[in-house]
Amino acid sequence: MKFWRCTVCGWLHEGDNPPEHCPRCGAPAEKFELVDMAEYDLADEEAAAPVVKELTEADKNRIQPALYRISYGLFIVGSKDGDKINAQTCNTVFQITSTPMRVVVGVNKNNLTNDYIKKSGVFTVCILGQEDRQMVGQFGYRSGREINKFENVKYSIGVTGAPIIDQCIAYLECRVDSELTIDVGTHTMFVGEVIEGNVKNESEPMTYAFYRQNKNKPAKTPAAKQWRCKVCGYIHTGEEPPETCPVCGAPSSEFELVQ
Amino acid sequence: MKFWRCTVCGWLHEGDNPPEHCPRCGAPAEKFELVDMAEYDLADEEAAAPVVKELTEADKNRIQPALYRISYGLFIVGSKDGDKINAQTCNTVFQITSTPMRVVVGVNKNNLTNDYIKKSGVFTVCILGQEDRQMVGQFGYRSGREINKFENVKYSIGVTGAPIIDQCIAYLECRVDSELTIDVGTHTMFVGEVIEGNVKNESEPMTYAFYRQNKNKPAKTPAAKQWRCKVCGYIHTGEEPPETCPVCGAPSSEFELVQ
Repeated sequence: MKFWRCTVCGWLHEGDNPPEHCPRCGAPAEKFELVDMAEYDLADEEAAAPVVKELTEADKNRIQPALYRISYGLFIVGSKDGDKINAQTCNTVFQITSTPMRVVVGVNKNNLTNDYIKKSGVFTVCILGQEDRQMVGQFGYRSGREINKFENVKYSIGVTGAPIIDQCIAYLECRVDSELTIDVGTHTMFVGEVIEGNVKNESEPMTYAFYRQNKNKPAKTPAAKQWRCKVCGYIHTGEEPPETCPVCGAPSSEFELVQ
Repeated sequence: MKFWRCTVCGWLHEGDNPPEHCPRCGAPAEKFELVDMAEYDLADEEAAAPVVKELTEADKNRIQPALYRISYGLFIVGSKDGDKINAQTCNTVFQITSTPMRVVVGVNKNNLTNDYIKKSGVFTVCILGQEDRQMVGQFGYRSGREINKFENVKYSIGVTGAPIIDQCIAYLECRVDSELTIDVGTHTMFVGEVIEGNVKNESEPMTYAFYRQNKNKPAKTPAAKQWRCKVCGYIHTGEEPPETCPVCGAPSSEFELVQ
């Protein structure tokens, strides 16, 4: 296989012939020159992958809008340090394996929550619904080093000791797998094994795109009814009690209205 | 700080007192016993995090619906092996750092695309729009080991040598950073530095939730017009040419209708 270099922008093309147009700068085929392959270590193919070059401002301006097309959910990621708790808004969460159930979260290393996760080895992920928009501002933009983000916020402490805010549609509790956790420059990617979790109500999850489109609109009053399972104490939020208790399996007749 | 163990389900609670109810099984405070802390190595707090235990079927049935509330986009992730190409449907992609621009993708280790990414050190991410539903089936469910997924699919080869399908709203080309890439059991998390990318049209990105709700509805005919920049050759898809060419900056008057 031959390599061709665009003499306009420097990109390498691999193939018997140069491309019709440079896919980076659009220069036509005649602007490509055959590369002396001795310049490159082709011992393995990965070494022949395009070299990472510093992107110009024009490159970044072209690529950035493509990155904005990636879809995200919106979450409150929390952790603890002894009996102190903190939490932050986060959009980078996905499930990575089903067996065992593992999720990945990306957290900026400057954030207090990052310190807490590293110290305690645990984190919670509260999944926000479309009616939980105020939580994005409550836990974003400011640091738990300066303010108590939980003031006037209803929450409980999970089995991990990390916080779970009441106003979310579902939550997960995770223990960090240190060996699967990576320092990626400005951020840490924590891989956590899910050890607990539950759905709190059936509202639609909020996506980042939905939040941007609706953040200045007033939220509807969230469903206020709460039902307690008389057998095990589980709290269900919604207009009706659940068909069966997800914790102990009791039927809906065992639920009483709390508020 | 003291530790309390739920005698019903075994969960550990950290605090001066046992919790009112076990957050896992709902058992009341009196079902908790004080744990002899000598049982645990408390040299650092992480060691005191809840132990990961095998989840019961009931646990999994409770937690799984919470995992389903995580929002995802939909993508075609492609790579190459020499001059062979392959691609697959994927929902696990997020940006992890801005400087440098890096993304993470999760890919099942059984998939041919995983082999190709490891061999070549490159991958592409094509971001699907709401009109690109047929691509999910085209590149999902079946293996590139058995069929040629690119038959009857229009695509180009990017600067990485990996494929970029025409029917997507934006794409990214990445070089794998091997040191930031992790084997997570059934899947690999590849961290890639974004070396190229662009928006192809202005349609809404498709989320996984949108796909599930609409997968059986016929897609509208996608915008068929393509405009070529006469200066650099860049192709824009849409009803109108762009205000300025994102590659060379030429104004809309320099665009000609291709189809």
